[in-house]
Amino acid sequence: MFDELKEECGVFGISLKNPSEDVMYNMYMGLFSLQHRGQESCGVAYFDDKSNIQVVKSAGLVAEKLLPQLPQNYPCTAAIGHVRYSTTGSAGLINAQPLLFKCNKGEIAIANNGQLPNYDILKEELIANGAIFQTSSDSEILIHLMSNTPGNDFESSLISSIKKLDGAFSTLVMGDKNKIIAFKDPYGFKPLAYGKLGDQGYVFSSETAALNILGVTDIKFLEPGELIICENGEIKQKLHYSDKKKASQCVFELVYFARPDSSVFSESVHQFRFNSGRMLAKNRKKDTDIVISVPDSGNIAALGFSRESGIPFDMGLMRNHYTGRTFIRTTQKQREEAVKIKLNPIKSVIEGKTISIVDDSIVRGTTSKKIIKMLRDAGAKEIHMYLSSPEVLGCCYYGINTPTTKELISTNHTPEEIAKIIGADSVTFLRLEDLRACLKDPDSFCYACFNQDYPIKKI
Amino acid sequence: MFDELKEECGVFGISLKNPSEDVMYNMYMGLFSLQHRGQESCGVAYFDDKSNIQVVKSAGLVAEKLLPQLPQNYPCTAAIGHVRYSTTGSAGLINAQPLLFKCNKGEIAIANNGQLPNYDILKEELIANGAIFQTSSDSEILIHLMSNTPGNDFESSLISSIKKLDGAFSTLVMGDKNKIIAFKDPYGFKPLAYGKLGDQGYVFSSETAALNILGVTDIKFLEPGELIICENGEIKQKLHYSDKKKASQCVFELVYFARPDSSVFSESVHQFRFNSGRMLAKNRKKDTDIVISVPDSGNIAALGFSRESGIPFDMGLMRNHYTGRTFIRTTQKQREEAVKIKLNPIKSVIEGKTISIVDDSIVRGTTSKKIIKMLRDAGAKEIHMYLSSPEVLGCCYYGINTPTTKELISTNHTPEEIAKIIGADSVTFLRLEDLRACLKDPDSFCYACFNQDYPIKKI
Amino acid sequence: MFDELKEECGVFGISLKNPSEDVMYNMYMGLFSLQHRGQESCGVAYFDDKSNIQVVKSAGLVAEKLLPQLPQNYPCTAAIGHVRYSTTGSAGLINAQPLLFKCNKGEIAIANNGQLPNYDILKEELIANGAIFQTSSDSEILIHLMSNTPGNDFESSLISSIKKLDGAFSTLVMGDKNKIIAFKDPYGFKPLAYGKLGDQGYVFSSETAALNILGVTDIKFLEPGELIICENGEIKQKLHYSDKKKASQCVFELVYFARPDSSVFSESVHQFRFNSGRMLAKNRKKDTDIVISVPDSGNIAALGFSRESGIPFDMGLMRNHYTGRTFIRTTQKQREEAVKIKLNPIKSVIEGKTISIVDDSIVRGTTSKKIIKMLRDAGAKEIHMYLSSPEVLGCCYYGINTPTTKELISTNHTPEEIAKIIGADSVTFLRLEDLRACLKDPDSFCYACFNQDYPIKKI
Amino acid sequence: MFDELKEECGVFGISLKNPSEDVMYNMYMGLFSLQHRGQESCGVAYFDDKSNIQVVKSAGLVAEKLLPQLPQNYPCTAAIGHVRYSTTGSAGLINAQPLLFKCNKGEIAIANNGQLPNYDILKEELIANGAIFQTSSDSEILIHLMSNTPGNDFESSLISSIKKLDGAFSTLVMGDKNKIIAFKDPYGFKPLAYGKLGDQGYVFSSETAALNILGVTDIKFLEPGELIICENGEIKQKLHYSDKKKASQCVFELVYFARPDSSVFSESVHQFRFNSGRMLAKNRKKDTDIVISVPDSGNIAALGFSRESGIPFDMGLMRNHYTGRTFIRTTQKQREEAVKIKLNPIKSVIEGKTISIVDDSIVRGTTSKKIIKMLRDAGAKEIHMYLSSPEVLGCCYYGINTPTTKELISTNHTPEEIAKIIGADSVTFLRLEDLRACLKDPDSFCYACFNQDYPIKKI
Repeated sequence: MFDELKEECGVFGISLKNPSEDVMYNMYMGLFSLQHRGQESCGVAYFDDKSNIQVVKSAGLVAEKLLPQLPQNYPCTAAIGHVRYSTTGSAGLINAQPLLFKCNKGEIAIANNGQLPNYDILKEELIANGAIFQTSSDSEILIHLMSNTPGNDFESSLISSIKKLDGAFSTLVMGDKNKIIAFKDPYGFKPLAYGKLGDQGYVFSSETAALNILGVTDIKFLEPGELIICENGEIKQKLHYSDKKKASQCVFELVYFARPDSSVFSESVHQFRFNSGRMLAKNRKKDTDIVISVPDSGNIAALGFSRESGIPFDMGLMRNHYTGRTFIRTTQKQREEAVKIKLNPIKSVIEGKTISIVDDSIVRGTTSKKIIKMLRDAGAKEIHMYLSSPEVLGCCYYGINTPTTKELISTNHTPEEIAKIIGADSVTFLRLEDLRACLKDPDSFCYACFNQDYPIKKI
Repeated sequence: MFDELKEECGVFGISLKNPSEDVMYNMYMGLFSLQHRGQESCGVAYFDDKSNIQVVKSAGLVAEKLLPQLPQNYPCTAAIGHVRYSTTGSAGLINAQPLLFKCNKGEIAIANNGQLPNYDILKEELIANGAIFQTSSDSEILIHLMSNTPGNDFESSLISSIKKLDGAFSTLVMGDKNKIIAFKDPYGFKPLAYGKLGDQGYVFSSETAALNILGVTDIKFLEPGELIICENGEIKQKLHYSDKKKASQCVFELVYFARPDSSVFSESVHQFRFNSGRMLAKNRKKDTDIVISVPDSGNIAALGFSRESGIPFDMGLMRNHYTGRTFIRTTQKQREEAVKIKLNPIKSVIEGKTISIVDDSIVRGTTSKKIIKMLRDAGAKEIHMYLSSPEVLGCCYYGINTPTTKELISTNHTPEEIAKIIGADSVTFLRLEDLRACLKDPDSFCYACFNQDYPIKKI
Repeated sequence: MFDELKEECGVFGISLKNPSEDVMYNMYMGLFSLQHRGQESCGVAYFDDKSNIQVVKSAGLVAEKLLPQLPQNYPCTAAIGHVRYSTTGSAGLINAQPLLFKCNKGEIAIANNGQLPNYDILKEELIANGAIFQTSSDSEILIHLMSNTPGNDFESSLISSIKKLDGAFSTLVMGDKNKIIAFKDPYGFKPLAYGKLGDQGYVFSSETAALNILGVTDIKFLEPGELIICENGEIKQKLHYSDKKKASQCVFELVYFARPDSSVFSESVHQFRFNSGRMLAKNRKKDTDIVISVPDSGNIAALGFSRESGIPFDMGLMRNHYTGRTFIRTTQKQREEAVKIKLNPIKSVIEGKTISIVDDSIVRGTTSKKIIKMLRDAGAKEIHMYLSSPEVLGCCYYGINTPTTKELISTNHTPEEIAKIIGADSVTFLRLEDLRACLKDPDSFCYACFNQDYPIKKI
Repeated sequence: MFDELKEECGVFGISLKNPSEDVMYNMYMGLFSLQHRGQESCGVAYFDDKSNIQVVKSAGLVAEKLLPQLPQNYPCTAAIGHVRYSTTGSAGLINAQPLLFKCNKGEIAIANNGQLPNYDILKEELIANGAIFQTSSDSEILIHLMSNTPGNDFESSLISSIKKLDGAFSTLVMGDKNKIIAFKDPYGFKPLAYGKLGDQGYVFSSETAALNILGVTDIKFLEPGELIICENGEIKQKLHYSDKKKASQCVFELVYFARPDSSVFSESVHQFRFNSGRMLAKNRKKDTDIVISVPDSGNIAALGFSRESGIPFDMGLMRNHYTGRTFIRTTQKQREEAVKIKLNPIKSVIEGKTISIVDDSIVRGTTSKKIIKMLRDAGAKEIHMYLSSPEVLGCCYYGINTPTTKELISTNHTPEEIAKIIGADSVTFLRLEDLRACLKDPDSFCYACFNQDYPIKKI
């Protein structure tokens, strides 16, 4: 319904010293807390009492569809899980993760966040050499590489195979009896954190919020090119399997994907968004009566904007959080107005006011246009739109679902033109240098969707 | 999961001049927009092409469970709908509304928001006189009264029967071929608004947000004791079937139940909450570093508090809006911490700060205690809690689900004691006179849950 | 899919001396065994530990939909249940039984098999006198009569109310704390049997098969006008509340509805059908090569036909018992042939043979036509159809769902014409006197659907 | 619930000249008609309008679970489908067929009936050489062999790969743009037939009943080692890719698995069963009063027994065909008697009689014991049990799910001992030579489960 970039996945894993029913409980709490990273399918792989791997998957939401399938009252030592936003029309459950493979390195389950930009080429090469693929998931590549590695050693084949991948991956792998292995690509595109669950063992998660909720302590972030082997709740080995490449952490995680109560790449999401709002305010067009946000993605930046500018913050748009479905028989007019079921203006806040409205980004501009119209209808006198990120000009090949370049409104239009198209009095993007200034270590990030400077070329 | 008072119902209805597929579309949009007023069951009654009444009901949410049952591509002229929070263990669907009756006044469907405090007595009297009840809904009373009225006139029997009811009801009735009748009790406890859908006809709704979303204009509020008869999209009659009694509009609708983008009883919910926050700020204990809210119920009041006090507003608690379910096998510790899955502190906002936190009310104090602990764990230095309503001291008999008086924390404890119990540095309630000062017409409201001054005595 | 008369209901009940988990187990086993009497909805009412009545109902089949809702591990003393074939488009669950009422005689649940032919008149009278109906079930009538009876005595009001009903009912009622009351109308239209479950208590069932399966002993049949009050597993009272009227037991129960392993009205279903086949054979048109049946309804009669005639019995039609659903997009040709998915000829049995085929009855003739065509296509040389009942000439007003008189093929056509229409070489109906000769007490049955001699006139 | 050998799969496929909505309709009708061959999961693979393969699968029954997922109103040219009885605890859908693979021979979907006895060895070899397995289905082997075949030619790689397999397989493969390839192993274990759908194209099915239902003509049976390539509704090539090995058609298909209205391996199932009953009768122990069958598997043989012996056939056991589920809380006694819910004696048939009862086979003897007890309780005077197959002495490695040898009652007991164990007066098995005498070409069958003469040794 909304016009937005889509994060494609979240991963979560746990390894305990002793079998415990807490594993399933924590998997549920963790995946539920990462639900915003993928709502189409979810799954859990766990070691059964013979150290074989069992997998439970389902289309749909964690609480509604996965929870009833999770074994209750089942003590185990380790598990990994996944939430997924399915990017293409690819048949539902077949690509749901974790995927389970049996090869000469034993049983292996894998849960991955990321994308290999040259996956198709790698896949065709492997296929030409006799490989068989059953899913359209990047993860199969890794297992084929492992399986093609001579010898039977799980760890060394895993490491040597990872080295052959070029792309974005923050991954949890399960195998070799009771091991959980976490690793990140050498660019460090996608977030992955971990910490201690009391003295029971270790927990891994795409975002720290899911760790905080479980009371995990000593939270650290995997570094680009780092790999951690966890066995029976102990970290057996930590190593850098590769030199860091040009560090390329996904800045959109901070701009939009991650929860504001998470830290990703050692950066507080809330802090970043607040600062980006401050930066926007420094370049504000006008001191309007109020500043509002497009909830929830623009909330924190709008607070920063308000703090910097002194313009009062108010909640001018009400978001309905119930999961909606589209009524089938709708007219064109009804479809255009359908956004109101999710986002409705509060007239008493809007009417007669000059307004600054803050959102995280504009992709195609379709939702922004509806929002501006809504605010005009509610009596806004002037509407100045602020985006807490620069113009989106390029597709992402590292795990974000972006429309084609042609569909991106900023590739064809100046901010002034965009303002006209969406009906705003002005549109202001955060400048890339200002966005960088909000980061502690700006050189460690990927800005390819803004500046098309791609860390890995797509062939 | 949360410790809160529960609104019990929402109603929505539509009457058009000509049969249209828009009726079902609008029923869906309207009931979806009122979903916060009841999540346990929902239903729609509509006139079929022979002016007979058909009913569709389901346990669960509007989009998930009711929508698939609604007739698609079905032109009709009028419908009423209901969302319900089931107050007791009463068997699911049997009490779901609208209820459909056949009696000597024809087929009648009814969707009701409210409660008759002396329902049991009325029911026993009717039963003693031979009445048969199939549900535990108050609405059956009205139909029995109608049926016992001599003659066959639908309208006059309806009006004379309503006059015999003493309690809270904001009701939509459907019958007498193509009529929709809306009425409110003479005290005016529960909100009910209506307006014009272009020149197609009229729409009725518990809250105006659902009307705004459909583009309804000329929105008005039913007055206490008012009744409107709508037939084929025209208002056939508007009348006051009773003198106003002591106007007793439910102030908790403004404090908590209604959406901030609604107006109820001619008062803007947002405006009221903002003002109540301002009032609280005038009595603030201390100028803390920041003010935060318990989302989402404390949001607007916290903004008002910030505006009045000049203390910066921030978002210190992250709310996960996905519908959760409890993991079955949980330990006591896990159950205590379960609130975190829905509400998680943002450490970078909280740590090292003195904090004012605004919520709408304290009922039992159980959730507040968990929140305070969460904030302490996140490093809050001081926590001053502000409630944008006075102490809840009495049960409601007019349609709010309240715990027993004994369970209400304020009946047994002073604010100072409450602060100690929940772990806050101070607890401040909005004074009743300050709450009244936030209302345009304070004398028209019921404050019984605060001052135990009950408009209708419970026998 | 098939062209047949439909039985409308089955009832089952149990009363034990001591609370036992066996009650729910037996309810499940019993209702599952009566599933053929109604597949649209089912339900169970039981006394909870406070002697209040709880009801569980669902649309769909007993094993699939009701079982998951039944309380597990729940000791109770008494319950009644119902399976229902819904006759009209009346909204699913609202009419599902048992129905639960609260009136001046307390809580009453009711499960009924039968029909009051003059229900509409009774209902309108009651409505005119102020009664309110919420379902379209005949059972509401009884409760209104009870409620209108002065005084509070449950038993006497029940008995005096039953006396006012004129129609077909074999009913289980639950109320007055722990009582189960079973009764039959004075004509005795519908079957109802009961017996002892060891020394635990009593079980009631529409058919004896469900009793046999549970090991019930001392099985007896309620007589027309008999009523039994069971309390805590003991028969407290047995009485004839009315003189027998012209005994009018439904002969179609023996012809078609009941399971062949049941006895109804003291007659063995298998024995009856076998004998009716014998009778048919005595009037056979020709000694064909084989005799086959339309499974499963014609099976037993075909065996009797074979035994009498000496013509070998074979299985020439294969029935697929999996529950089918219609593919939505079908052509006219596909719809016509759809019967094959349920009934397919066995070519090696049919080819080149002269065939006698036995079915229980012809209603509209549509299925018979398809079957004859199927057999012709499979190479049958001659096909003589035998029906183990006389021509169906009249609608039933006592609990069978019949098409309108106009639709009945026999009202407009002679057997010879029917043979031509359906493509058979001959069609032979069992003569009414021959059918009567198969019964032990032929005068105690209703043959109205054959001879239009209605025991109760429909006004 | 029953003690029986289980067929593991059924396959069905269609290839038409022109895109037609009939493909999906026929897939539904065909798979529904093969439902008895597998009730745990089912699926359909079809070519979309770009000649890519789409797969739809589900756990559960064809009508209930698969039908709602099939594309409606969707013209396509070819599809294959599968019903599956899952033999092990292997996680539901992951092993459901058709399986879809992408390899250097393109996209390939496969639906298979059969088993490779030395699958584990083949799999371990392939894994050792770098293969990756995602399912526990034998079908993956074939694709790995194809993929390892040099070059890109689909057909030649398929044929050369099939040649490397040693085991039972009757398979439908889909790929190479619009081709459907059907083939059988050189032993010919499992049935596979095909024929013409008017002039639209070809249909393939495990059993002919599914072909008859669709009006398919010119029905032929694939021979052992035969392969047929169908493209756009035309047979492009028919070849024998291998010399016949010792023909080893599964005789249990005739004894039990196939529908009586099917022909398998050119033998009419009905004819075979009827004859096997005749053979049994020739060795009957005694001329009893009646002969009955264990429905439905013993029906036809019992008819043959009756015909030969002149002992009247009757239906003494009533089978309830509704799908049951086990009540969770049952006592040991209840579990023992649970069979009655599916199979109930007809007392009037049984009481006081000497009885011959015919079933297809005894596996463990548990169900037989319950049936004999049931008949005794119903008053049978003598019970002689006849099995229309010889003693089951060996496990099957070619696609039948058999218990371990130890569990087979006949491996440890003589017929006399078995009679004692199950409570019968005598137990008579069909002699192997008599069974062979019922077949047109007895040398072409596998009798390994009876004589342990395995066509392929299990290593």
